[in-house]
Amino acid sequence: MAVSVADRLVDVRRRLHRFPEPAWREFRTTAALVEELRSIGVDELAVGPDAYDPDDRMAIPGESELAPWYDRAREAGVDEDLLAQMEGGNTGVVAVLEKGAGPSVGLRVDIDGLLIEESDESGHHPQAEGFRSETGETMHSCGHDGHMTIGLGVLEAIEESDFAGTFTVFFQPAEEESGGGNPMAESRFADGLDYLFAVHLGLDHPSGEVVAGIEKPLAMCHLTAEFIGTSAHAGKAPQQGDNAIQAMATAIQNIYGTPRHSDGMTRVNVGRADAGSASNVIAERAKLWGEVRGETTPLREYMKTEFERTLYAAAEVHDCDVDFKIVSESPRADSDPELAEVVYEVADGMERVDSTVKSAEFGASEDATFLMERVQDEGGLATYLIVGTDHPTSHHTPTFDIDEASLETGIDVLTDSILAVADGRV
Amino acid sequence: MAVSVADRLVDVRRRLHRFPEPAWREFRTTAALVEELRSIGVDELAVGPDAYDPDDRMAIPGESELAPWYDRAREAGVDEDLLAQMEGGNTGVVAVLEKGAGPSVGLRVDIDGLLIEESDESGHHPQAEGFRSETGETMHSCGHDGHMTIGLGVLEAIEESDFAGTFTVFFQPAEEESGGGNPMAESRFADGLDYLFAVHLGLDHPSGEVVAGIEKPLAMCHLTAEFIGTSAHAGKAPQQGDNAIQAMATAIQNIYGTPRHSDGMTRVNVGRADAGSASNVIAERAKLWGEVRGETTPLREYMKTEFERTLYAAAEVHDCDVDFKIVSESPRADSDPELAEVVYEVADGMERVDSTVKSAEFGASEDATFLMERVQDEGGLATYLIVGTDHPTSHHTPTFDIDEASLETGIDVLTDSILAVADGRV
Amino acid sequence: MAVSVADRLVDVRRRLHRFPEPAWREFRTTAALVEELRSIGVDELAVGPDAYDPDDRMAIPGESELAPWYDRAREAGVDEDLLAQMEGGNTGVVAVLEKGAGPSVGLRVDIDGLLIEESDESGHHPQAEGFRSETGETMHSCGHDGHMTIGLGVLEAIEESDFAGTFTVFFQPAEEESGGGNPMAESRFADGLDYLFAVHLGLDHPSGEVVAGIEKPLAMCHLTAEFIGTSAHAGKAPQQGDNAIQAMATAIQNIYGTPRHSDGMTRVNVGRADAGSASNVIAERAKLWGEVRGETTPLREYMKTEFERTLYAAAEVHDCDVDFKIVSESPRADSDPELAEVVYEVADGMERVDSTVKSAEFGASEDATFLMERVQDEGGLATYLIVGTDHPTSHHTPTFDIDEASLETGIDVLTDSILAVADGRV
Amino acid sequence: MAVSVADRLVDVRRRLHRFPEPAWREFRTTAALVEELRSIGVDELAVGPDAYDPDDRMAIPGESELAPWYDRAREAGVDEDLLAQMEGGNTGVVAVLEKGAGPSVGLRVDIDGLLIEESDESGHHPQAEGFRSETGETMHSCGHDGHMTIGLGVLEAIEESDFAGTFTVFFQPAEEESGGGNPMAESRFADGLDYLFAVHLGLDHPSGEVVAGIEKPLAMCHLTAEFIGTSAHAGKAPQQGDNAIQAMATAIQNIYGTPRHSDGMTRVNVGRADAGSASNVIAERAKLWGEVRGETTPLREYMKTEFERTLYAAAEVHDCDVDFKIVSESPRADSDPELAEVVYEVADGMERVDSTVKSAEFGASEDATFLMERVQDEGGLATYLIVGTDHPTSHHTPTFDIDEASLETGIDVLTDSILAVADGRV
Repeated sequence: MAVSVADRLVDVRRRLHRFPEPAWREFRTTAALVEELRSIGVDELAVGPDAYDPDDRMAIPGESELAPWYDRAREAGVDEDLLAQMEGGNTGVVAVLEKGAGPSVGLRVDIDGLLIEESDESGHHPQAEGFRSETGETMHSCGHDGHMTIGLGVLEAIEESDFAGTFTVFFQPAEEESGGGNPMAESRFADGLDYLFAVHLGLDHPSGEVVAGIEKPLAMCHLTAEFIGTSAHAGKAPQQGDNAIQAMATAIQNIYGTPRHSDGMTRVNVGRADAGSASNVIAERAKLWGEVRGETTPLREYMKTEFERTLYAAAEVHDCDVDFKIVSESPRADSDPELAEVVYEVADGMERVDSTVKSAEFGASEDATFLMERVQDEGGLATYLIVGTDHPTSHHTPTFDIDEASLETGIDVLTDSILAVADGRV
Repeated sequence: MAVSVADRLVDVRRRLHRFPEPAWREFRTTAALVEELRSIGVDELAVGPDAYDPDDRMAIPGESELAPWYDRAREAGVDEDLLAQMEGGNTGVVAVLEKGAGPSVGLRVDIDGLLIEESDESGHHPQAEGFRSETGETMHSCGHDGHMTIGLGVLEAIEESDFAGTFTVFFQPAEEESGGGNPMAESRFADGLDYLFAVHLGLDHPSGEVVAGIEKPLAMCHLTAEFIGTSAHAGKAPQQGDNAIQAMATAIQNIYGTPRHSDGMTRVNVGRADAGSASNVIAERAKLWGEVRGETTPLREYMKTEFERTLYAAAEVHDCDVDFKIVSESPRADSDPELAEVVYEVADGMERVDSTVKSAEFGASEDATFLMERVQDEGGLATYLIVGTDHPTSHHTPTFDIDEASLETGIDVLTDSILAVADGRV
Repeated sequence: MAVSVADRLVDVRRRLHRFPEPAWREFRTTAALVEELRSIGVDELAVGPDAYDPDDRMAIPGESELAPWYDRAREAGVDEDLLAQMEGGNTGVVAVLEKGAGPSVGLRVDIDGLLIEESDESGHHPQAEGFRSETGETMHSCGHDGHMTIGLGVLEAIEESDFAGTFTVFFQPAEEESGGGNPMAESRFADGLDYLFAVHLGLDHPSGEVVAGIEKPLAMCHLTAEFIGTSAHAGKAPQQGDNAIQAMATAIQNIYGTPRHSDGMTRVNVGRADAGSASNVIAERAKLWGEVRGETTPLREYMKTEFERTLYAAAEVHDCDVDFKIVSESPRADSDPELAEVVYEVADGMERVDSTVKSAEFGASEDATFLMERVQDEGGLATYLIVGTDHPTSHHTPTFDIDEASLETGIDVLTDSILAVADGRV
Repeated sequence: MAVSVADRLVDVRRRLHRFPEPAWREFRTTAALVEELRSIGVDELAVGPDAYDPDDRMAIPGESELAPWYDRAREAGVDEDLLAQMEGGNTGVVAVLEKGAGPSVGLRVDIDGLLIEESDESGHHPQAEGFRSETGETMHSCGHDGHMTIGLGVLEAIEESDFAGTFTVFFQPAEEESGGGNPMAESRFADGLDYLFAVHLGLDHPSGEVVAGIEKPLAMCHLTAEFIGTSAHAGKAPQQGDNAIQAMATAIQNIYGTPRHSDGMTRVNVGRADAGSASNVIAERAKLWGEVRGETTPLREYMKTEFERTLYAAAEVHDCDVDFKIVSESPRADSDPELAEVVYEVADGMERVDSTVKSAEFGASEDATFLMERVQDEGGLATYLIVGTDHPTSHHTPTFDIDEASLETGIDVLTDSILAVADGRV
């Protein structure tokens, strides 16, 4: 790739970095992608409800959370028709290149930012170079700006190559909330994919290192529970209350006590709680935000079942009701070794890659597994690769940044891997 | 009363003191009472099932707990017919004097001992005088030996007096377990009682003091709960278990958190727990022994309802079942001031009484309240009096003892009070 | 009192009703009181730090909570010097009439509003009559507007009377938070008071009824606890966290399990909790807002000690720290029967009073008890009376209102009682 | 091996099966082993304190638990000198063959029975054949009778072979309590072992199958905790108590909530609890029996540290003390693949073996790991093999039994493997 291409990639990445938008609010981001995709020229370009069934989405924010981002996008000059298309939080875009007979290959990248205020320290590169987040409250601190750039770069490269087949790029919203993986996997664009690639930058792997396929992402489920009791004056008549805070405390105590499982690792957490109103009132309401994970999807289901029973029974201990909701979830899916092997060989022969790893454990969760599982269920192959990048601090911190040189690495590894599989080298 | 009578009282008390028997196992004690009552001469003498309906009993021990005491009584030479009458733990006796037209007056005394090994220190009076408990495991450490003696003494005095009316003495078993109050209250002997007296020695009141009527015994309920789960190997497959110990711990934590009630004092306790088998096995069974109390009977019912719901829901938290049982209970009943006034005046004029108290709070619970409630419900009057006695240590301790001089005080106060009400002085 | 006076009272009350201000933010209210007091003419008028030592205050809000109310008061035209005097939330005023030799008599009324949005239903009298709260977020829904009016009315009446002695009216801020009672009680104005009256409208007593002295307000303590742990990724490394939510749940479970006390009623509540940030993060922080109460001040201390130990130990269970704070508290103090008797006799002989009650239990808590206790400790007498008023809904509800006719009743009962004690009729 | 040998093995096994003795009470068992070993003829035979330092033992039962088994052994005619040697529960024996220059090879077998009453159903083979346990309360339901038989058989075979080197058999007591592994590993007999074999029958592997080396036994720790509070009358003065049952419930609730660890599997259990005395008494004492396990020894240490802190802090929540004790523990140690390979090859070539497995996960815990760890720490190799045997029901059940044909399999595989390593085939 010529230097000028590298410069353009950096430009694209920095532009996207300036307006990070959280899950299902990627209105301006989607518009920027559409603009880039039109400039590249694709055969099909589906935005929001054209790309997926909105009912398949998970973790959809409320109207009051959507509205300000919709308004911001309008103020930033996003086309009204495009905005209307995305109304209600139907962001994201799928782009397809139809290049004759050949395999159907997919690439999935994620596009959402995080509710983290970006550092304005002078040593923070985006601040020094003038492309720090302009929203004041959100940040691309997980590298999704880079993922989108890679997605665009690979698309352009494949478009210009002699690739024969169909190539589809899924610019997926709401990865951070595990909200967008499911609708993408359920969409018609996922039908009949022979190969799927998903990619992530960094994850503690340095620039120059490539992991050909990750394993053991934990299956995951986010959930909420609101306990509904009866308020009463804590001094005058405590017995008239049904104490939602006691119900919640009982639930929390016991949720963490869910038996460990001999089939593999499980996780459980109640990460947030908000309950009651004042010290002298028996709490009428108490809400918790929790999650369960499992080394396998059945282990996650085990944890979910236990979590749910505990909630209902803990509510009953204090004569309360409980409103239980699944917010979002993702399955476990591992990289196929045959496809990872292609990536490994491609990366291993590349000058800018000085360390190639066949496989690594993921530790956390990822909703790319929806697409991977869909492809694998239909007989295709999938791999989730990591393109190393030096990052000064951890993902999800205000001073996270990527080494922009790794964008080209990502594009090259993916492009060559796609060409390889199209050539039947799998 | 002549000195020789005093001596006889002491003899009777010491004889009873030597073979204390626990609740519903007062075989030898009942036999001794029957012997004394026959010697006094009464018009009706009903033992066990003749005195009450055995189905009304509460806190009945199992056969294995009954058998050794039955056997001991047989070995001690208790008449076989009498033993057969008491089979299954139907102890206790009711004695009636029919002395012509006049009011129907009742007196209730309790007869059971405690599972406490009596002190053999030389300074302990029963040890020094040679009438320490001979069972090696039980003790009259709440003064019921004295209560029985008073009951016999009053009966003899009334028999010899010009009392006109019906006088019934209830020698009630199983007071310590709140097991015998209910059957006595439900029996035909409790029908139409105009006046009822109940009496207790000591309770931190010194010799020479008489409390004419106690107030606010707490309504009470003893209960047990056994959690039944599923055992599993804690190392190999903890998830296969349903953990009865976790269920029990959840129940205990929440039972103590039952809301305080604005209508008055409540109490709750889990005083004993026995669960599981080995450290490496998920516990299949866990049993707890608890109690609730209330300043009023409805407050006890409130606590009981909360206790029960908590048990079932806590079991459900860990997918266990629970077997909940009411062991025994007693209501609240207060002394009627009109009748207590009679006792007060009688006691106040008595030389051996140097302190007379109209009323005192009771603090704990007593199943004499069943009889009191029955009498009061039918329009009669009841009082529960305390005859002070110097006791070296607290009730229910191995070195408890009474001042035998207070036996006569009790007999005199009760006899004169009964004669007073028969004379219409209420 | 002439009709015109009644009209003026209503005017004053409605003016105060229009700008209710919460605890320690009664800037405009204090200014209105100062204006009225200057118009009446008093011998001493002490505002904020002149009335008490600001360090004696409790439950002081943060600067961000104070500022908007300070600004509102400035916008409403409150005098800058007076505003400066109250800076930092030093609201409230004490007014003194020096009328020669005679007893020193105090009257305490409270002045703060509540964070309740007032009803705008047409049937709600303040809405219909056009004096509904203008703040949009606060309301005099506990009758403190009426209490202030009574305080002014009594002051005017005493000023015009032949009362001989010293008469001090404490317009106390922050009653709802138990924040202002202590500084008033510790101030020089509370020195040497012979008699103290405190007054409340309503409390479920109808217009025309007067309760001469309340008993058994519960001693109370508000407190907060923030658990501080260590955050960690709940999926990747849960063991690296110190879970503040688990610590809080453990504390809550056990706080409610504090043993009931045989000396009398106790209360405990955790009425609010706010913890953690996201479902996939081990919570670093968890805060709870609680309270304890006791039938006596020692019982409250017992509950407070147990609460605090439970917090620290529960934090230790999960290796967290805890930041424990007493927000405010108030002791128990009962009305002196001798002084209540004066009120009773005065009220009993008054035409507009058709029901007089000697004594009633209070049930909840009140920080007037600080002043009562101070006076009683120094040998004076205190009573807390209730002037009944028909109120359509409960105190602390958006549709609460008072019967304005009861303002005169309150003024008359208090004025005549004060004159009576000055005449030695106690 | 000749048929007569097979018969003799069965005889030995059945004799040992008839008097199973629990941990550290294997008096008669040790005596039987000594008798057999003397008959075989060994170069050194060390019993009890001659075999190990008694202070290195763990999980030693109390005198009252030892005495009856000591007495039984005496009644069964065990030699008085031998009995004296074992006094205090110093059971077990180590036998050594010195056969010239060559490697030092060890074999460890365990010898204790379980507190399980053996089935007397006619279909239960030991019952049908007349060698059911004669103790009435204990049973060899984990196959240790077979392990001892194998140990004796291998010793005899090695003695008769041309093996050159030193061969030591550890007949280890108290495996079921993890009590005997440590003293054996710390003894002089474990010094300088080049190879160590440990063996177990069954574990769900059928007759004819051999597992060459097990992996991932969980590191384990058994522990007890006794909470010591203050008793009080639950009705009269609950606040005077320090409730040991509440402390225990708090500990249990939180112990199960110990965070899962990202380094691997952990386990925790409270399998038994015994607390308090009566429903109306605040419990003064509460004892729990627990265990923790970890996929690695550091993970077990993590769990142990968390368990201990939770205990102390939970005690503090209720102002109780706690008496915490480590009962016993065992580390994790894996089979060395090089040594397992030898076993694999030996077994694979054996006619009576129809299925050979290189490695299997163990799931539970085993204190043979002490010896394995010791050998590995000093540069030797160790493997823990499984000799499959059809067992009608699970280990640790009353109807467990082994297929006696597998005794010879075990002896042959071990003997040939030992000869192979002596021949340098590792």
